[in-house]
Amino acid sequence: MTWEAPMRTALQLAANGPATGVNPRVGCVLLDAEGNVLAEGWHRGVGTPHAEVDALGKLPEGAARGATAVVTLEPCNHWGHTGPCSVALIEAGVSRVVYATDDPGHHSGGGAERLREAGVEVVDGVLRDEVERFLGDWLTAARLGRPYIVVKWASSLDGRAAAADGTSRWITGAAARQRVHEQREASDAIVVGTGTVLADDPSLTARGDAGELLATQPTPVVIGTRAIPNDAAVFRHPNPVIFEGTHDLHAVMADLHQRGFRRAYVEGGPTLASAFVAAGLVDEYAVYLAPTLLGGPRLALGDIGVETIGDQRRLRIVDVERLGGDLLIRAVPVPAGAPRAADTDPADVAGADIFPETEEV
Amino acid sequence: MTWEAPMRTALQLAANGPATGVNPRVGCVLLDAEGNVLAEGWHRGVGTPHAEVDALGKLPEGAARGATAVVTLEPCNHWGHTGPCSVALIEAGVSRVVYATDDPGHHSGGGAERLREAGVEVVDGVLRDEVERFLGDWLTAARLGRPYIVVKWASSLDGRAAAADGTSRWITGAAARQRVHEQREASDAIVVGTGTVLADDPSLTARGDAGELLATQPTPVVIGTRAIPNDAAVFRHPNPVIFEGTHDLHAVMADLHQRGFRRAYVEGGPTLASAFVAAGLVDEYAVYLAPTLLGGPRLALGDIGVETIGDQRRLRIVDVERLGGDLLIRAVPVPAGAPRAADTDPADVAGADIFPETEEV
Ligand SMILES: NC(=O)c1ccc[n+]([C@@H]2O[C@H](COP(=O)([O-])OP(=O)(O)OC[C@H]3O[C@@H](n4cnc5c(N)ncnc54)[C@H](OP(=O)(O)O)[C@@H]3O)[C@@H](O)[C@H]2O)c1
Ligand SMILES: NC(=O)c1ccc[n+]([C@@H]2O[C@H](COP(=O)([O-])OP(=O)(O)OC[C@H]3O[C@@H](n4cnc5c(N)ncnc54)[C@H](OP(=O)(O)O)[C@@H]3O)[C@@H](O)[C@H]2O)c1
Repeated sequence: MTWEAPMRTALQLAANGPATGVNPRVGCVLLDAEGNVLAEGWHRGVGTPHAEVDALGKLPEGAARGATAVVTLEPCNHWGHTGPCSVALIEAGVSRVVYATDDPGHHSGGGAERLREAGVEVVDGVLRDEVERFLGDWLTAARLGRPYIVVKWASSLDGRAAAADGTSRWITGAAARQRVHEQREASDAIVVGTGTVLADDPSLTARGDAGELLATQPTPVVIGTRAIPNDAAVFRHPNPVIFEGTHDLHAVMADLHQRGFRRAYVEGGPTLASAFVAAGLVDEYAVYLAPTLLGGPRLALGDIGVETIGDQRRLRIVDVERLGGDLLIRAVPVPAGAPRAADTDPADVAGADIFPETEEV
Repeated sequence: MTWEAPMRTALQLAANGPATGVNPRVGCVLLDAEGNVLAEGWHRGVGTPHAEVDALGKLPEGAARGATAVVTLEPCNHWGHTGPCSVALIEAGVSRVVYATDDPGHHSGGGAERLREAGVEVVDGVLRDEVERFLGDWLTAARLGRPYIVVKWASSLDGRAAAADGTSRWITGAAARQRVHEQREASDAIVVGTGTVLADDPSLTARGDAGELLATQPTPVVIGTRAIPNDAAVFRHPNPVIFEGTHDLHAVMADLHQRGFRRAYVEGGPTLASAFVAAGLVDEYAVYLAPTLLGGPRLALGDIGVETIGDQRRLRIVDVERLGGDLLIRAVPVPAGAPRAADTDPADVAGADIFPETEEV
């Protein structure tokens, strides 16, 4: 039988889990020899059972004997809050484990090997691309030992973050600002420089339409050596602020990973954003473009260490979203030397109109 | 009977005419009393018959007596290369004229009045919005006494036109560059500053994929006081170069209108683009955004006279087009004080994904 259908179910189950937190979102389906579903499970975050154990727990003793476990991520192999899933599967008598992608964790990997040694049949790589896309940020964090880093800025169409005198409220409209709060909520950490705290005294919370706090709050992280006033709004954040008194962004990111943060949302200002770009510490750009022109010296991005066109930081735009009158452009870095999109993908060059409500002007 | 169907036909006929040139694109349908089509006509550009006369000329003497003429623009009322259409319609015995929008021309307007005086029934405003959109640039030129001005620039996502050392070839890809040539071809004049000529020695022609000249060529216009070398490429342009040795852009635009130019494509560089924005001389922006970051001092737009956020030059994005890996953002100025899109159009705020090939990252 082909394992794609149950794997797709497992992926849907995985999506029930929390988007933030130290652990990946994983789903599991247990099938009998005829391919009938015996039980389903998913992981609900740190301190709760892993997906495999969640599914096994729904069956009476012995009922998983001879079953196939279809799970999105290679079963773990270490003792954490819970025992290794590999052992749980072996002890339950599961005879086959099908998974999508390897667990890149130093501690948790090796589950497939242990299963094989115990005589369990192991099939891997089923729907790997889809699952890796789904787990993209968590996998990046696991592989690189730092959080997945989204750098956000908002600018006018001509790349300015503020008018010449520093005023900027509000360049983007309500819908764009709401989207920023959603992106904050989906992050473990919200990262700013001391410059932003001193200039704007932001609360760094994720809020809803009416200003209410959203269910999940990113932890505020302030990078820089200057002192912050005791009455700064960030001290009233539901999560305690982390201060990183250094300009070494690699060290800061390693520290955040150590603390269990897997998704960092870098929200400025221009100095910090430029430093992240220059350091090559960006996995994804979230650029909010407002339909306005400002001119002048207040740039959203300053010097990023590019002297000549050959050194440009090339990106690939993966998504453009219209938010009220604004645009959100999401892009990812392109490895230096890779061919540009226009040269590789002729289908892309057609230039189809992407605004349904296109008007002639 | 309703006149929308024949007006739509007339609009389709109008589109057969040339997009550039001093005259508007106009279409005309002649109908008998039962609404049957007697003849169709359209205008093919300066020196050729107007749409009404083109249609009348297809009928034998007397055959238009009692007919209805459905025409996209108010029939003209002056002696130019051809006689007034109002008189031609009266002499042909047409009993009713239906048109979409008034002719705003100082010389040519007044046709409706002359028709009414001659006892012809006149119906106006049929499909006015559609026809005005179609004739937008020509109408703007006629109303303002200057060409319709498109200001184009290409920049990185962070608003730079070049790397710190001035290198910029190529920020945008082949598909975007091809689109620029199409926009040039659809313009009467291509306008640059002396700075661009001195720096790049551009040919300022509209070219196809293989570098061949396209059928219609914009006239190159160079603004500025500095001398241009005798061997500059622009002197080999199929159309003679116009030099405007002044910084008074209003005067330059009035002069171009006087010369019969109705569509001007301002292609830079940053100094000239900024001056057009500062002068309020922009009807449409064509901003090519390349998926790359450059940082540094070479901005696509410099100072535009905005000191504080309240003075920002607000725009409305009317279209986003994907060209290879690049984006073309077309926008129009919003009158100062008008509410922003996000506040007025909740349907717009939904933020529908406009990239069909959206990927998760
Ligand atoms: N448009 C937007 O999306 C956006 C977003 C946020 C903020 N802003 C605006 O940005 C302005 C503040 O700008 P900003 O650039 O001063 O703020 P910032 O980037 O938040 O803070 C700059 C500070 O970050 C610290 N820092 C940490 N690591 C660094 C590194 N590797 N290199 C350099 N500095 C590092 C330094 O602090 P120490 O000097 O203390 O060491 C530096 O002074 C405010 O007006 C705010 O409104 C705009
Ligand atoms: N990214 C793009 O889309 C794009 C497009 C074109 C060019 N470029 C680049 O732009 C660079 C040239 O930049 P640039 O800014 O020097 O070129 P520019 O804007 O084409 O020319 C500047 C010159 O325009 C003249 N000018 C006319 N009216 C003016 C006014 N109202 N105010 C100020 N100046 C006026 C002045 O000439 P005088 O001093 O002679 O009086 C001024 O020096 C080149 O490197 C080129 O590659 C980029």
